Amino acid sequence: MTHPYFDPAQAAVFNELSTARDSTFEVSYFGLHGFAGVTRTILAAGGANFKNYVPADWATEKPSAPFGVIPLLKETSKDGSKTIHVAESDAIERYLAKKFGFTGANAFEETLVNTYAAHTTALFQQCFLKYFGTKDEEVKAKAKADMASGSIPGWVNFHEKYLAANGSNGHYVGDKTSLADIKTYHILGLLQSLTGEDLISESKTPAIWKVKTTLESMPSVRAWRETEDFKAFSEKNLNFLGYP
Amino acid sequence: MTHPYFDPAQAAVFNELSTARDSTFEVSYFGLHGFAGVTRTILAAGGANFKNYVPADWATEKPSAPFGVIPLLKETSKDGSKTIHVAESDAIERYLAKKFGFTGANAFEETLVNTYAAHTTALFQQCFLKYFGTKDEEVKAKAKADMASGSIPGWVNFHEKYLAANGSNGHYVGDKTSLADIKTYHILGLLQSLTGEDLISESKTPAIWKVKTTLESMPSVRAWRETEDFKAFSEKNLNFLGYP
Repeated sequence: MTHPYFDPAQAAVFNELSTARDSTFEVSYFGLHGFAGVTRTILAAGGANFKNYVPADWATEKPSAPFGVIPLLKETSKDGSKTIHVAESDAIERYLAKKFGFTGANAFEETLVNTYAAHTTALFQQCFLKYFGTKDEEVKAKAKADMASGSIPGWVNFHEKYLAANGSNGHYVGDKTSLADIKTYHILGLLQSLTGEDLISESKTPAIWKVKTTLESMPSVRAWRETEDFKAFSEKNLNFLGYP
Repeated sequence: MTHPYFDPAQAAVFNELSTARDSTFEVSYFGLHGFAGVTRTILAAGGANFKNYVPADWATEKPSAPFGVIPLLKETSKDGSKTIHVAESDAIERYLAKKFGFTGANAFEETLVNTYAAHTTALFQQCFLKYFGTKDEEVKAKAKADMASGSIPGWVNFHEKYLAANGSNGHYVGDKTSLADIKTYHILGLLQSLTGEDLISESKTPAIWKVKTTLESMPSVRAWRETEDFKAFSEKNLNFLGYP
């Protein structure tokens, strides 16, 4: 039997809701930013009405998740009559980015957004798999040193250059918010937790920094950052991962 | 200055070529499957006219790559007058999968394809970052043991179940080839190199195996697999990564 999320019987409802802009959303994830941070920022930047669900006892809910993991997304139609679900953070982010217009206006822009986003995601995954996901302190220290002298400055130099070439306007593509901006926004705290202000700061990388200040200046993003949920997630992120 | 691949001046040409089905392609990568395997299989399954370029001296070409890495894709219009480029394997795969109709017929199918593909890509990256990308034999052995008892059987069980629920027809979504099928096809050799036939085989996971045999039975994929390039890449893949 397939998982309810994957049941083809819901295709018509899914396709209908996929273009709705007045839905409400629920993001299921642990009580920190982690792998749900990008999803929540897309929802905030899109001006969506969303709430967070933090499982009180994940072990009992785990078997009902399609791949035994969170985040998961639930979308409900405005009138409450229809509900759909999406699993896997990458698929959730793509679904929402497309819905809220963060994937570029045409094939060229979409490919640029995907290119920059992919380059950032690869570094994010490297940091998680090689550093945060490792318990051995010696292995961690070596991974940190390797990344701080290799992949992180590599990422910083390329992104600062390409963002500056686009006018240091806080965006990778044209003058619009995209998934590429949001991915970069979410990796900055992580990278600073590993390298301090040695590589990334307002003065050293002004074009990268402008991505952060541009997103944070959006009223709906600012409002999300002022919620109790956001503050609690930042605190837990700091405790568990070492960056807010 | 931006990189030539990212120059907005080429947007019109890019958008025009993005929907062409009679272009020719060049995939730049090392002489093995590695991170270009999925791209080449998409091109083969799409019936595309493509050739492979293996840099004779990568160090001299590296500085001109947008992020200093390969694979890279070049697409040329049928009449040879127009050329565009795409960087980053994820962006290349998405660009080509969309062009050749491997991303599902609607929002629901597209999200399912993205979901299954994301789950497989995450395991692929874990294998590369934790095992193939590590030189320390002790760390490698531990990573292999951890994955062989954790993430790999997890992946196998979920995918066998969902593929069986779709009728064990060699496809994840409906009865059509998608990026999800191709991603799974490309991880099977890698997983078997780590776990032998303990977890994945024609008899143990018939639905997963059917994805492999279905793709390999496509005439254009079969033709690609019979080329000298493909055979040379398989041999080098085996030498460098331990699986063909």
